[in-house]
Amino acid sequence: MWAGRVLHAALSAAPLSRRAQSALTQLRGVLEEELEAIRGAGTWKSERVITSRQGPRIHVDGVSGGILNFCANNYLGLSSHPEVIQAGLQALEEFGAGLSSTRFICGTQSIHKDLEAKIACFHQREDAILYPSCFDANAGLFEALLAPQDAVLSDELNHASIIDGIRLCKAHKYRYRHLDMADLEAKLQEAQKHRLRLVATDGAFSMDGDIAPLREICHLASRYGALVFVDECHATGFLGATGRGTDELLGVMDQVTIINSTLGKALGGASGGYTTGPGPLVSLLRQRSRPYLFSNSLPPAVAGCASKALDLLMESNAIIQSMAAKTQRHLRHRLQLSSGPQGQGPDPGADLSSAQRGGHRPLCGGLRGGGAAAWGTTLTWLVPSRARIAPPSTLTKGPFGQPRPEALSPAAVLGLGWGKACACGREYQATVWKRADMLVCFILSGQAQPWDPWKNQAGAGALRAGSWVS
Amino acid sequence: MWAGRVLHAALSAAPLSRRAQSALTQLRGVLEEELEAIRGAGTWKSERVITSRQGPRIHVDGVSGGILNFCANNYLGLSSHPEVIQAGLQALEEFGAGLSSTRFICGTQSIHKDLEAKIACFHQREDAILYPSCFDANAGLFEALLAPQDAVLSDELNHASIIDGIRLCKAHKYRYRHLDMADLEAKLQEAQKHRLRLVATDGAFSMDGDIAPLREICHLASRYGALVFVDECHATGFLGATGRGTDELLGVMDQVTIINSTLGKALGGASGGYTTGPGPLVSLLRQRSRPYLFSNSLPPAVAGCASKALDLLMESNAIIQSMAAKTQRHLRHRLQLSSGPQGQGPDPGADLSSAQRGGHRPLCGGLRGGGAAAWGTTLTWLVPSRARIAPPSTLTKGPFGQPRPEALSPAAVLGLGWGKACACGREYQATVWKRADMLVCFILSGQAQPWDPWKNQAGAGALRAGSWVS
Repeated sequence: MWAGRVLHAALSAAPLSRRAQSALTQLRGVLEEELEAIRGAGTWKSERVITSRQGPRIHVDGVSGGILNFCANNYLGLSSHPEVIQAGLQALEEFGAGLSSTRFICGTQSIHKDLEAKIACFHQREDAILYPSCFDANAGLFEALLAPQDAVLSDELNHASIIDGIRLCKAHKYRYRHLDMADLEAKLQEAQKHRLRLVATDGAFSMDGDIAPLREICHLASRYGALVFVDECHATGFLGATGRGTDELLGVMDQVTIINSTLGKALGGASGGYTTGPGPLVSLLRQRSRPYLFSNSLPPAVAGCASKALDLLMESNAIIQSMAAKTQRHLRHRLQLSSGPQGQGPDPGADLSSAQRGGHRPLCGGLRGGGAAAWGTTLTWLVPSRARIAPPSTLTKGPFGQPRPEALSPAAVLGLGWGKACACGREYQATVWKRADMLVCFILSGQAQPWDPWKNQAGAGALRAGSWVS
Repeated sequence: MWAGRVLHAALSAAPLSRRAQSALTQLRGVLEEELEAIRGAGTWKSERVITSRQGPRIHVDGVSGGILNFCANNYLGLSSHPEVIQAGLQALEEFGAGLSSTRFICGTQSIHKDLEAKIACFHQREDAILYPSCFDANAGLFEALLAPQDAVLSDELNHASIIDGIRLCKAHKYRYRHLDMADLEAKLQEAQKHRLRLVATDGAFSMDGDIAPLREICHLASRYGALVFVDECHATGFLGATGRGTDELLGVMDQVTIINSTLGKALGGASGGYTTGPGPLVSLLRQRSRPYLFSNSLPPAVAGCASKALDLLMESNAIIQSMAAKTQRHLRHRLQLSSGPQGQGPDPGADLSSAQRGGHRPLCGGLRGGGAAAWGTTLTWLVPSRARIAPPSTLTKGPFGQPRPEALSPAAVLGLGWGKACACGREYQATVWKRADMLVCFILSGQAQPWDPWKNQAGAGALRAGSWVS
């Protein structure tokens, strides 16, 4: 107390402006030090500025002639689909810029109810509820649904938002080994003492592209009286014969109880997420789910775009089939080419430009071939020098921009060139990464040694047992 | 182990479909019980479906002739401003429906950089960074900025998202009593041992409308070498002579280090939030802030609308002055009327329709006067039978819809009628709630006894010492 008074008196005597200045100066010093450490570690993330719509071919500030974009989650290319944009324009015109309100206060418009009904219809579920994102849907589900007498059983490699959501709830928590059905069964046996049991899994695991064995999960859930929850963010719209997702792909649409997914990837790519499942569950979430209760309504333009994306997928199967066909065609072809050290070489002009500057340097700088450039991304926070490249289904052969259209050889379309890639005197191994039965991604590893995906070696940590669904 | 095997065998013998059915049946039973409990407690939240744009006058499904809306955070009425909508249309047309990507992967468009520059300019700060919401901006700031050797000092009534954000960081945490400068000073003295000290406060506290004493906070921060963070969600756009917020209102724009605020209330009301402050801080957040790194970019339409809302406020002071003038005019007038038990009576036709059904019943059902209806909202999770009603600045006198325009007397414009409100045989006290120097809200308390705000009694917990800023 006395010390405090003395301190107070001493501080009062100091000129105010100098102390304030010194706090800010100190902050700047701390910040600059942190920033320098990030730069030094080679993990600095630069942002390139897109000056066009999102799409397979984009214009980027400072790059003349455009760039091929391989790193959005724009799986179906609907982010810039003319009908999707038109629907957004209409919704914005008719329903305004925003609600300035949460759903339950005065933020529910007819378009929100329509979109929820459409989502439920698409997934063949009783009802659906919108959230600002699927991250929020995951954060809001478990706490609202499960009580301390219940149990949740979660795949160890589930998305961070599922894990966060589970942490928020008071149910007993069991974590089973990734895709390991024997372990899940053991945990289900242990969990028989609880009231409700909920198995929670990603449908398609976003970082490694493997698919949850939903048939086996549903079989076990049925045997042990459990419910099944699936996060379908990286499946909705393009997995399964009509794009309904992993549950359709694996024939268990009637056995998965709850689905969370996103409007921010394949379904137009603006923002928004949802939960769909039994009607009373959705009713309970509207009453209790915190991210729903405390978030602004989806902006009308976003609701309009997502609604049209769903229409497009429900009216015809053309978009989904086109993606499946392209992926299968290129996948089959390229997998053979890349199945060993003798894999085809890349475009000799390939320039892993930013990768040259350090082992962990992000590859976002791109892959350049002739006058065209392609843009992938790294997962440097997980695996150094590993790039995930996701070609959207709308990417087709053809010239881009004015300069040197010949640079876009077929190899630049759905297979940029792989095998060994020699860039800046360093050898990189580029290989195919299959995501489910339709989506092809690529990994560029920094390893000098070639890597054979068929042998299912660890590689850059990219392939796992069970990854391949034919 | 043995028990497990026996259980397994027993369960295997049971028909799968019956067990699966029973898990779902059990879930439905649990859900229906929960829903019934919520209904029984009178806290069921119904959602009314708006069939028009957001605004002071809206059309609602099932209500003929429209309704007056007093419960959005659409403070400046920009949610449906024609220029805001037009800018959204242009952005959607030019930049597409969405990015299907995070900012740092391939989700940064020129409109995002432009909007960040505009936000920084509006607040007179060095730089700004966008988030999907201010909730996310609060969740992402403290963890990225503060280390275990730092300290954060937080007002006890700060918004939940500030509290959550602070919980996520590893700095030492001090909580000072609401608006209590002596307590803050004591905590600052205690915190002298830490490296950085950050005082965190709401600018305008959303639940009670009181304003943080920023002059005193900045003075203390200066004296004790601390930084000041202010959440301006309920201030940006309308507090201060040019709408810059609480820091402008209280003349400390050059002393507040960091501001978080929202695009989802006064600034167009769609969605989005931001941090603005020192350049190196924004750079660090781009590298480290989890909600920024793992969230989709703001949809182009949302960025376009918010950008135009800022333009409107920066080009002219007309909107802000209009709101200030209306609020002052009605506030001065109405405060006199409502300053005691002799306050003017309400529209005799007032019908607190849903309030009739139970003490805690939400008042969202509305306040009806003649053929027009007004829609407020309750804060039943805090104070039963208390309604917060926020008239937007664009609400003006005039007929609405076809039927009975005479029902919209001046009393229905910025003062729906207050004093004692007799509804369904029960007496309610309706009175003025002043928020800062410009925004008027109203409280309907369920108390039978009149309540004099001038005497600063507890009332429905609505007024606090220090609430009134002239």
